Amino acid sequence: MKLSKLVGVRFKEKPADCVIDSHTFSLRGGYVKRVSNGIFSLYNPMKRVTANIEKILREEMDAVDCQEVLFPVVLPGSLWEESGRYTSVGEELLRFKDRNDTPMVLGMTHEEAAVHLAREYGSTYANYPFSIYQIQTKYRDEARPRAGLIRVREFTMKDAYSFHTTQEDLEQYYARMANAYDRIFERAGIPGVIAVKSDSGMIGGSVSHEYMLLADAGEDSIVLCDECGYSANMEAADTTVDNSGCSPMGELKKVYTPNCKTIEEVSAFLNCKVEEACKAVVYQVNATDEYVIVFIRGDYEVNETKLTNYLHEAIHPAEITEDSGLVAGYCGPYRQEAKCKIVYDKSLEGIENLFCGGNEVDYHYTGLNIKRDVGDVEYVDVSKIRDGGICPCCGKKSIRISRGIEAGNIFQLGTKYSKSMNMTYTAEDGSQQIPIMGCYGIGVGRLAACIMEAHHDDKGPVWPITVAPWKVHICCMRQDDEACRTTAEKLYKDLTDMGIEVLFDDRDVRAGVMFADADLLGVPVRVTIGPKALANGEIELATRDKSVQLSVKKEDIIPEIKKLMDSLYEEINSKVKDRI
Amino acid sequence: MKLSKLVGVRFKEKPADCVIDSHTFSLRGGYVKRVSNGIFSLYNPMKRVTANIEKILREEMDAVDCQEVLFPVVLPGSLWEESGRYTSVGEELLRFKDRNDTPMVLGMTHEEAAVHLAREYGSTYANYPFSIYQIQTKYRDEARPRAGLIRVREFTMKDAYSFHTTQEDLEQYYARMANAYDRIFERAGIPGVIAVKSDSGMIGGSVSHEYMLLADAGEDSIVLCDECGYSANMEAADTTVDNSGCSPMGELKKVYTPNCKTIEEVSAFLNCKVEEACKAVVYQVNATDEYVIVFIRGDYEVNETKLTNYLHEAIHPAEITEDSGLVAGYCGPYRQEAKCKIVYDKSLEGIENLFCGGNEVDYHYTGLNIKRDVGDVEYVDVSKIRDGGICPCCGKKSIRISRGIEAGNIFQLGTKYSKSMNMTYTAEDGSQQIPIMGCYGIGVGRLAACIMEAHHDDKGPVWPITVAPWKVHICCMRQDDEACRTTAEKLYKDLTDMGIEVLFDDRDVRAGVMFADADLLGVPVRVTIGPKALANGEIELATRDKSVQLSVKKEDIIPEIKKLMDSLYEEINSKVKDRI
Repeated sequence: MKLSKLVGVRFKEKPADCVIDSHTFSLRGGYVKRVSNGIFSLYNPMKRVTANIEKILREEMDAVDCQEVLFPVVLPGSLWEESGRYTSVGEELLRFKDRNDTPMVLGMTHEEAAVHLAREYGSTYANYPFSIYQIQTKYRDEARPRAGLIRVREFTMKDAYSFHTTQEDLEQYYARMANAYDRIFERAGIPGVIAVKSDSGMIGGSVSHEYMLLADAGEDSIVLCDECGYSANMEAADTTVDNSGCSPMGELKKVYTPNCKTIEEVSAFLNCKVEEACKAVVYQVNATDEYVIVFIRGDYEVNETKLTNYLHEAIHPAEITEDSGLVAGYCGPYRQEAKCKIVYDKSLEGIENLFCGGNEVDYHYTGLNIKRDVGDVEYVDVSKIRDGGICPCCGKKSIRISRGIEAGNIFQLGTKYSKSMNMTYTAEDGSQQIPIMGCYGIGVGRLAACIMEAHHDDKGPVWPITVAPWKVHICCMRQDDEACRTTAEKLYKDLTDMGIEVLFDDRDVRAGVMFADADLLGVPVRVTIGPKALANGEIELATRDKSVQLSVKKEDIIPEIKKLMDSLYEEINSKVKDRI
Repeated sequence: MKLSKLVGVRFKEKPADCVIDSHTFSLRGGYVKRVSNGIFSLYNPMKRVTANIEKILREEMDAVDCQEVLFPVVLPGSLWEESGRYTSVGEELLRFKDRNDTPMVLGMTHEEAAVHLAREYGSTYANYPFSIYQIQTKYRDEARPRAGLIRVREFTMKDAYSFHTTQEDLEQYYARMANAYDRIFERAGIPGVIAVKSDSGMIGGSVSHEYMLLADAGEDSIVLCDECGYSANMEAADTTVDNSGCSPMGELKKVYTPNCKTIEEVSAFLNCKVEEACKAVVYQVNATDEYVIVFIRGDYEVNETKLTNYLHEAIHPAEITEDSGLVAGYCGPYRQEAKCKIVYDKSLEGIENLFCGGNEVDYHYTGLNIKRDVGDVEYVDVSKIRDGGICPCCGKKSIRISRGIEAGNIFQLGTKYSKSMNMTYTAEDGSQQIPIMGCYGIGVGRLAACIMEAHHDDKGPVWPITVAPWKVHICCMRQDDEACRTTAEKLYKDLTDMGIEVLFDDRDVRAGVMFADADLLGVPVRVTIGPKALANGEIELATRDKSVQLSVKKEDIIPEIKKLMDSLYEEINSKVKDRI
């Protein structure tokens, strides 16, 4: 490709709304163009990157016996009614009516379509296990699309669905798929992506993992233990609290605590540690407005996703009314008479001597012992794990919380979809059984953005050679210099004839413009042909990141390019795990 | 791929709603599954066929310097408002509102998106010409989807858009694109697809061609001349009428014609030839209800698309009311006093002596001479060309009307989109100019269906090797025969290791089932390993269409397969035109 013919424009200024480097460079480098909020067209360089990613995805999916199929983008609402998601999913599911007034949706995931396609083939045990995948456009009507290709409304996704007769078989396949995912990220040049245990959210199922690229710009928080390698997302990380050093049991007393509004004020007034406060956080169930009081250790916070998962109900922070029976700011577990649901967080377990609200304005209790004063309660984990906290795996105080971008996910779905959609198979003994499913997704555009996040400098992306839009970039520094021009043109032709993807900057522009554009296009191997060096029979050869910079004899340029390309491939391939 | 692991089911019975063979075999062969009216999921065999087609499309587009990009499926309504199509296109454009109440559409073609993407790059003459394409999902809310993958609502399409500074440059590129289209159809195994001149319809522009596969099952009519090779679709074919043998001029007379309702009855009553009737066909303009009378030779019919194009107005057959001033069944051009638009079809030109309606119930005129009795009128061609009619190109009575399926189309768009969307470039002289565009489409799934229509027998498709889902199909006739099984497995492994796509029927099923499935899957090269032949050291090798059937020595099977594959490729490649 000649750069003069490459459709798209590149520019220097950072667009105002870009908060993440991959977004900035996607726009500045002529990779994408915004069409609507969270909707982009891809120019040729980004289409080339995504095509390279899709090739890796196909190879790794095919290698785990996953068959490529294609589901529709537009699906009948009736299919989503079968699974119950037509009503259970929020506004991010785009619903509309066709010209015959039939309710339709735009597919945001394809579990329903996968069950629909596999139902007949999956009607006998003999055909199990099997799995299918597609690479297809999806649409999610995000309320707040942001960060360029990271969180969009329309995106291309690789989504796979596996079908099994036993949980063991699903787990075995899940492990193979996890290995394929590792290989995908390694081959795409981001071996640092880690699998973290996650909450399954809207998709459903019990066990699931997110593949996270650690990045300060990421919108997700990830819980890591550097000691034992434990990792999870915030929702899935169990909080472990050490209450071994707390005060001994005391006497329950009601205390007048005037003008003490915050935990800290009460704690100072009573001369008690915040760690021995039994704090109340009040929510309401969305559907019924029923109150839910969470009692939690004073220095911990509630993780609302954990609470939602425990309650199986969507919730929101409470608005405490006068007739609620709750005394705002003074809720405590002792003699709590309001009609509401009460949840005790695990952080309180083992504390013998607490202080808490007195269920009366300006009063608190000290010396509360839950077992003695309230009775046997169930402690559940609904708190946010904290930086420096205890690892639930190795028990050391080594929890670190990092930011990350989700680059993919895998789910053990169980029978959520097969059961609701009446997919059954005849087992070997003749009985009718419900298959167990797994599902596995990677967003193609988001992966491209992740690669850009992981590999860039302040001038632009530094594409790993495996996914780079072109492998070699030839800069002809002087179009008006006969020797430069003919040497560059011959090299372009020779490399292209060898099947190497080359971008040839054939423009008559200043060196500054040429190099700035080359940096924005991020091609890994750069060949610079200038009149001075060429007069000495030499051509400059470098990597995009300048870690290699060589002067090469003109006659050696092709073997040297190949050698450099080989070493760049080797650098990536040496980090790719074997298939299991 | 082992056939036992291929997701999908095959069956014998023809589904009730299938009126076209490709639809029948798409369902019976486990290629597609219906998800909704005109919406299908593709199983792996069809996904493989479409992937092979897409590879050919990419290679041929890249070869005409067309760059791959990707436009969104979901587009903002505002973009379609720029071109005016948001309101001008009918209900087949799916309009909806997103969660923020913004009007959106599902892309059915991408002219607007192409102009949007290319606007900046195309702002200077120096960057012209250029062209871009995508392969992407489209949605058209068809009122009556039918014929399987031929007329669907959701489909994958290759659509290309070119940009030029002069009409000559567009025409040159149009010719290159036409050559690429010929090569695409030839490479896909349907060299019989012909380019016919067409009406541009909703897309706009003046010159356009449709690529038609001649097929009795087709829904389009194509006008062909076997003498000179002329071809056009019905809307684009000029009707030529020979009126040289008509009667000489006579006297205009009003005649009482009781109980004569049809042209034939009047003609018999008056003893005149139907060919000398001046028939009236009345329409109304949709927007205004204004009447339009078309006068046409008695034995010809109006082509409503030609009439619409002439009027630049959508029309419908008239409902003649009492206050219209028209006398239903007796409209004639002489003393026609109704307020309406009158169109004279070319078929009347040169007839000296006509009979026509008398604008009074039960009365006709004879001896009408339009020039003498009505005056100078403009004759326009709005009639349907007829089988056996005169070729507008060579003038011979050699018109043949065939059925066909549209497999692709190319359009010279002119400035329709660039002008309405304010795309301009600075010309060499500094002036602002509007670029000229072309657009070029091929539906991927429809092309697959066309190939199936062109290549099948009563048992299933006979895939051309270039697009076949697999190249070799191994039938192991006896899984319980050690020699058969190990020979088949080794051959499967050896061919697969050589990079050949092999489908291996490893099932323990009857020969009838095995061969019926093989016929439905249509793989071009079939290897049958049976115990009897194998005992003699032989394996059967055949083509899907049985034109080749050989007994091959076991040790020669691989070279013989390769030889047969080579000959099948050569058969197709020998028909592929050179690139221009």
